[in-house]
Amino acid sequence: MIKRTRKKRTQESKKHIGQVPGTLIYTGKKSDKDFHVECFDYTKEHIEESILLNIEDAVNYKETDSVTWINVDGLKHTDKIEDIGKQYNLHPLVLEDIVNTSQRPKIDEYDDYLFVVLKMLYYNKEENIVIEQVSFVLGKNYVLTFQESEGDVFGTIRERLRLNNGRIRGMKSDYLLYALVDAVVDNYFGIIETLGNKIEDLETELFTGYAREDINIEVQQLKREILKVRRAIFPLREIINRIEKGDHPLIYKRTITYYRDIYDHLIQVSENIDIYREMIWSLMDMYMTTISNKMNEVMKVLTIIATIFIPLTFIAGIYGMNFDHIPELHYKYSYFILWGIMILLFLAMLYYFKRKKWL
Amino acid sequence: MIKRTRKKRTQESKKHIGQVPGTLIYTGKKSDKDFHVECFDYTKEHIEESILLNIEDAVNYKETDSVTWINVDGLKHTDKIEDIGKQYNLHPLVLEDIVNTSQRPKIDEYDDYLFVVLKMLYYNKEENIVIEQVSFVLGKNYVLTFQESEGDVFGTIRERLRLNNGRIRGMKSDYLLYALVDAVVDNYFGIIETLGNKIEDLETELFTGYAREDINIEVQQLKREILKVRRAIFPLREIINRIEKGDHPLIYKRTITYYRDIYDHLIQVSENIDIYREMIWSLMDMYMTTISNKMNEVMKVLTIIATIFIPLTFIAGIYGMNFDHIPELHYKYSYFILWGIMILLFLAMLYYFKRKKWL
Amino acid sequence: MIKRTRKKRTQESKKHIGQVPGTLIYTGKKSDKDFHVECFDYTKEHIEESILLNIEDAVNYKETDSVTWINVDGLKHTDKIEDIGKQYNLHPLVLEDIVNTSQRPKIDEYDDYLFVVLKMLYYNKEENIVIEQVSFVLGKNYVLTFQESEGDVFGTIRERLRLNNGRIRGMKSDYLLYALVDAVVDNYFGIIETLGNKIEDLETELFTGYAREDINIEVQQLKREILKVRRAIFPLREIINRIEKGDHPLIYKRTITYYRDIYDHLIQVSENIDIYREMIWSLMDMYMTTISNKMNEVMKVLTIIATIFIPLTFIAGIYGMNFDHIPELHYKYSYFILWGIMILLFLAMLYYFKRKKWL
Amino acid sequence: MIKRTRKKRTQESKKHIGQVPGTLIYTGKKSDKDFHVECFDYTKEHIEESILLNIEDAVNYKETDSVTWINVDGLKHTDKIEDIGKQYNLHPLVLEDIVNTSQRPKIDEYDDYLFVVLKMLYYNKEENIVIEQVSFVLGKNYVLTFQESEGDVFGTIRERLRLNNGRIRGMKSDYLLYALVDAVVDNYFGIIETLGNKIEDLETELFTGYAREDINIEVQQLKREILKVRRAIFPLREIINRIEKGDHPLIYKRTITYYRDIYDHLIQVSENIDIYREMIWSLMDMYMTTISNKMNEVMKVLTIIATIFIPLTFIAGIYGMNFDHIPELHYKYSYFILWGIMILLFLAMLYYFKRKKWL
Amino acid sequence: MIKRTRKKRTQESKKHIGQVPGTLIYTGKKSDKDFHVECFDYTKEHIEESILLNIEDAVNYKETDSVTWINVDGLKHTDKIEDIGKQYNLHPLVLEDIVNTSQRPKIDEYDDYLFVVLKMLYYNKEENIVIEQVSFVLGKNYVLTFQESEGDVFGTIRERLRLNNGRIRGMKSDYLLYALVDAVVDNYFGIIETLGNKIEDLETELFTGYAREDINIEVQQLKREILKVRRAIFPLREIINRIEKGDHPLIYKRTITYYRDIYDHLIQVSENIDIYREMIWSLMDMYMTTISNKMNEVMKVLTIIATIFIPLTFIAGIYGMNFDHIPELHYKYSYFILWGIMILLFLAMLYYFKRKKWL
Repeated sequence: MIKRTRKKRTQESKKHIGQVPGTLIYTGKKSDKDFHVECFDYTKEHIEESILLNIEDAVNYKETDSVTWINVDGLKHTDKIEDIGKQYNLHPLVLEDIVNTSQRPKIDEYDDYLFVVLKMLYYNKEENIVIEQVSFVLGKNYVLTFQESEGDVFGTIRERLRLNNGRIRGMKSDYLLYALVDAVVDNYFGIIETLGNKIEDLETELFTGYAREDINIEVQQLKREILKVRRAIFPLREIINRIEKGDHPLIYKRTITYYRDIYDHLIQVSENIDIYREMIWSLMDMYMTTISNKMNEVMKVLTIIATIFIPLTFIAGIYGMNFDHIPELHYKYSYFILWGIMILLFLAMLYYFKRKKWL
Repeated sequence: MIKRTRKKRTQESKKHIGQVPGTLIYTGKKSDKDFHVECFDYTKEHIEESILLNIEDAVNYKETDSVTWINVDGLKHTDKIEDIGKQYNLHPLVLEDIVNTSQRPKIDEYDDYLFVVLKMLYYNKEENIVIEQVSFVLGKNYVLTFQESEGDVFGTIRERLRLNNGRIRGMKSDYLLYALVDAVVDNYFGIIETLGNKIEDLETELFTGYAREDINIEVQQLKREILKVRRAIFPLREIINRIEKGDHPLIYKRTITYYRDIYDHLIQVSENIDIYREMIWSLMDMYMTTISNKMNEVMKVLTIIATIFIPLTFIAGIYGMNFDHIPELHYKYSYFILWGIMILLFLAMLYYFKRKKWL
Repeated sequence: MIKRTRKKRTQESKKHIGQVPGTLIYTGKKSDKDFHVECFDYTKEHIEESILLNIEDAVNYKETDSVTWINVDGLKHTDKIEDIGKQYNLHPLVLEDIVNTSQRPKIDEYDDYLFVVLKMLYYNKEENIVIEQVSFVLGKNYVLTFQESEGDVFGTIRERLRLNNGRIRGMKSDYLLYALVDAVVDNYFGIIETLGNKIEDLETELFTGYAREDINIEVQQLKREILKVRRAIFPLREIINRIEKGDHPLIYKRTITYYRDIYDHLIQVSENIDIYREMIWSLMDMYMTTISNKMNEVMKVLTIIATIFIPLTFIAGIYGMNFDHIPELHYKYSYFILWGIMILLFLAMLYYFKRKKWL
Repeated sequence: MIKRTRKKRTQESKKHIGQVPGTLIYTGKKSDKDFHVECFDYTKEHIEESILLNIEDAVNYKETDSVTWINVDGLKHTDKIEDIGKQYNLHPLVLEDIVNTSQRPKIDEYDDYLFVVLKMLYYNKEENIVIEQVSFVLGKNYVLTFQESEGDVFGTIRERLRLNNGRIRGMKSDYLLYALVDAVVDNYFGIIETLGNKIEDLETELFTGYAREDINIEVQQLKREILKVRRAIFPLREIINRIEKGDHPLIYKRTITYYRDIYDHLIQVSENIDIYREMIWSLMDMYMTTISNKMNEVMKVLTIIATIFIPLTFIAGIYGMNFDHIPELHYKYSYFILWGIMILLFLAMLYYFKRKKWL
Repeated sequence: MIKRTRKKRTQESKKHIGQVPGTLIYTGKKSDKDFHVECFDYTKEHIEESILLNIEDAVNYKETDSVTWINVDGLKHTDKIEDIGKQYNLHPLVLEDIVNTSQRPKIDEYDDYLFVVLKMLYYNKEENIVIEQVSFVLGKNYVLTFQESEGDVFGTIRERLRLNNGRIRGMKSDYLLYALVDAVVDNYFGIIETLGNKIEDLETELFTGYAREDINIEVQQLKREILKVRRAIFPLREIINRIEKGDHPLIYKRTITYYRDIYDHLIQVSENIDIYREMIWSLMDMYMTTISNKMNEVMKVLTIIATIFIPLTFIAGIYGMNFDHIPELHYKYSYFILWGIMILLFLAMLYYFKRKKWL
């Protein structure tokens, strides 16, 4: 499953090679989801929520004093994305990056807006990690967000806006950006937790000593998953750091503390990922040790049986020979004496193995 | 055991996802310990020790010239923590961090106070490491400490305050913070020592060559424990470094030397942890070598026995055949000659194995 | 194949040792391709495309206001390269670097031009990676490019120049350099994709459990290929970074954004290469595990068979002995009783192996 | 042995936990060596060497123009150390560090003196490395040195002082400190050499192919020894670097060149240690390979013997059966024909093993 | 061989321990080569080449306007080295470093001269790497070079000086130093090539699958050789970097470009060494895999033979028993029926192994 999606992505991204820079090519899955633009416009006192059917309406919110959040779902309609881009004066490379969903998380600072690309992570029904790109444009009084498809982690933000919950309605667009990024980062904790549980399950299985033989395939897949998450999350630290440190006029000083909070969360997530990576390596180690131990045990059983019975079989073989003159064959008790010798040999062997701690 | 607690923690921390920033949610164990506030107020000349039943009393100590140490045990009463926060003008994110016990050690500098989060480490009765978060707020004339539950490493500090022992009573709040952090760090040495002893025990077992088969599980658990301690201790170096370097007005120049001393201790602890990590890897190596050596020994025993007796058994088989015409069967001494040949063969084999150093 | 080419290269480069610095020695393959100089001279309004038969003509384009791109294919004609070098006042070390095809990617800043060396990567017909060096000289109104042989990744650039497609015709020589470097970097994505597919194929083979025995040779070759690509691509990041950061007068401010875009692409390529490296290591791990697992399985089969039949054979041997007095031999049912005992033993063994999960 | 001393040390250092900072607690071995203070006072022209029986006399040398070296052996007399500390105005933490022999090498700069802690390394009679702490206090006209017990590496310095050998008598206290530190560092070369010889011996043993079975224990112990030396030596580089770079008024410019020389030596020692570490890892690798090779050889012998004789034994078994109708049994030459077949089979097997290169 | 030389070196360098700093002690091999001083004195127009029999003559060239290159072969005549040192005002530590041939490559900047220590590398007749130290002193109008023994890589430089080839005669002493260092670095490419070929040979042997059993010893020796080369070459990068960056008055601006060229070459050499290191590790991996694969094959042969014949032998044993009542023995065709059963069993086994892909 994981491999399929990756293959898809690289094939799509191939179409991009050799194009004129600034050409808009959507590199995600051509899902049949419709294009969908929702809009929140609010001040401390009032809020207006609407679905924009006509994209040209978006520009109305650009110069108002109220804070506007325009959320675009569905990136395959590159022409409409381009329309919005023109209305908000976005650089062609920004638009290219919005629709190129194989983009690495990054931040680009322009004179009158900030452009941020992040990754949202979900577990789908088959328990595989799905990565969805979400782009943010922070302007003086607006935040634009672009998502590949409907369904996101911004539900609580919408609630807080509607209910005037917390301080969000009283703050500027930079706080809205913070709240949105914070929602994305908070969601990472859930992913991290699921990864942790998976590692624990594998560990328990290995600790019990009778792991399935194909457990190493699962360990490898988990390793890959962690690699994937790591790659989606790690660049974010640098991004938040640049928002926090960089003196961009759109980020007010009082919001910086909040971004520092996101940064702390990211460090925590990153540390967990690194610990999981180390644990995965330990799991592989344990698995190899388990195999070695099992092989050792198998070898011991074989050696004990062979070492006991091969000499005894030899003795029996001796007296199965048909020589005319084998004196022992004719004594009356020699059969019973032989049994005695063989039992003694057997016990000596057992004692030897006990002392070697093989039994 | 280790795994249980971790699972608990992540489940609790999950409740946090998607909350309004600044909401106080206690993420530790809902222990039934009561809420408990103790207060030391002292100058060089006098000292007053009290239990604050009414949290509103705390504010009385805020503006006095004497140094005040208010120690809060029990974080589940988030409303009371919030009360204290309001009296001392703490930022909402600070309060959130105090009760979120899965916090990474960190320092936040605010205009009129310093906020520090550390981890205290204990071994509980089951010999497992328990991590308890302790938060410090250093103000102009006060230090607030917040602990998850009763029982801490500050016993000697209380004694020194009461007995006017050493220079503590004659110094400002920055020295009190130093003394408290120093007590936490000093306690790490004990943890480090226990880890060292555990490693030594495993090592001795492995050096003797007959280690238990499940010793690798113990090695893995020790590895995890070191990882845990490392994660709790390592961020501290940066924190102390920032206190030492950072020109915060609340830290007087003459106290800096003392913080440098803590820093040296932390470097020492960190070095030990890193050496232990390397030693653990060596242990795993040794264990693998031990398994390989044992398997080698098992194989040798099998090979010696099989190599000696399989050819002899073949010979015996030959003369057990029922052909009408086997001339050797009818000579009078052939049975004894055969014994001679077999004994010679046996000795030749032994000599061969001796020369190969298998015996 | 890979090894052959490498050997060739080092032998050629040997000729270089101990030469006077600034001596032009071509270190590539002495291919019989002809020398070939093509020239594009354009402004926003007009474009002139020509093949320069006479190298002295190149100098005509040097001082014009229009942007000139002179592309030289075939480096073995070192005398002609030297001619061009003199006309454009290139430093002797620059010319030496142009023809020394074992050069590492690098950038050298001179007062009135920038010198950049890159590597183009192709897969040849035998599915091996071929590295071709391409050097760029960026002057005030011109870009010179030097390639080892015909065939390159600049086809789309030529088209865009001819068709006045995109913004290329309206920009200066620094944008032309960007477009050319961008074409080289875009081409890396294809290489990366092929590498990714190769890894996936090996992985699938290993996951199925019955990989060919020589798969580790393929894994090693892939490892080497990645090493090779890494070495060709990684220095580029630093180069682009220096163009972006360095305040060279030939790079206009508005072009910087475009170079930043290349930088982002390079980071993405580099990350992929590093992930592939890690995946290759995992593959080796998996292969070793697979071998161990197979050996384990083989051992189990041997042990089960031997452990069941060796004792039974011993019993049969006992009653094949020729002692005069073996009472059991004469009871009527003892043969059938023996069969019963042997079948019981057989079943007991089977039960034992089932419980040990060897079956 | 190694483990014993470490255990001792941590137990002693435990006593330190929770003490008032600045309390003097000796953490070394309570050896019965006496306290011993020797004193050199010299200018270019004269020198005075004495044993100080009365510690109060030390202060007499403090304010003279001549250079004074006071060397204290025996740290368990903490009261006397405290006396000296008071006379020379040493900070309480400095005195604490002098007697705490588990101190990491470090440098502390105070206003009117420099405090340096180093480690001297010896091999004792049992060929184990012993680490002895030596502390230096460099003042305007004096150097104080504190050693755990008598016996040091300063013999040549004493000689050079007495004989007015080299430039030492004509220089200030900063050169004396250099000479003493240089003596400590020079001594490291001997340790490094012994380690190198040990590694070589193990290597030779492994190269010959018949290493003792417990050689991996020795390899592990050597690894630990290198870890120990590394930990004692590595922090020194930073210390010397700070002396060289740091603009401390007590270090004159013309002495800096000499400290740079020490720094070069340290880099050389450090590089050797790192090379030894890498070599030790190679040794472990070689050991594992040796084990695998031996096991392979053992398996081959077993397989050859079993593969040859098991089929032959089967054939013999066939004609040992007691069926009434086995036609072959009654032909006159069948016994000899059978021998022929068995010898052919035997030779065929040998040929097969030769071709497989097992023989 | 390698080990011998190392032992020698450390023993010699031991004599150095505890000496007065600035004492000249030759630590190389006491070869019987004579002391030999050659001298080149040149301007653009004329050149004078001579052998200096009288060392005092060297000083004549010090203050002339022409560039002088004095090359000293044979370092054991420490008194003569000291003479030269005095004439050119060299610091005692410089002289000590010149004769101490276990010096690490380094650069020391003095007020009126630059001191550089490098390593020349050769392969001797036994195909072992020999390291020879060469020291350079760059003064205003002169370059002094000191070599352990005759024979060097400066042949082409001498030719270029004599023939007035290239720009060397028209430049200052800083260009002469560049030319000499460049000759040393160019020579590294040959060493690197030989290492590359050795790795390739081992690789080819391993790829074929039937490598000699002692190939791992060769791999280890190659690993050591690379370590040795690495240690001699890597510090050079830093040295050249300091010449290039450092604003020393003796290095003219126009020569800097040439030093940058050396730096590029060094980076290329260093990269190759690192790639070789990685390849060596891969070789070890491949060797281990090869061993595992062989063992697997051995085990399979054993298992197939044993699994087929042990049950058959058991059946034969059954009918070799001497019970009075074994009904099967007396049926006429039972012998032939038994053969049928055994052949069926045999074929079933073969089919089973085929399906398991063991055959």
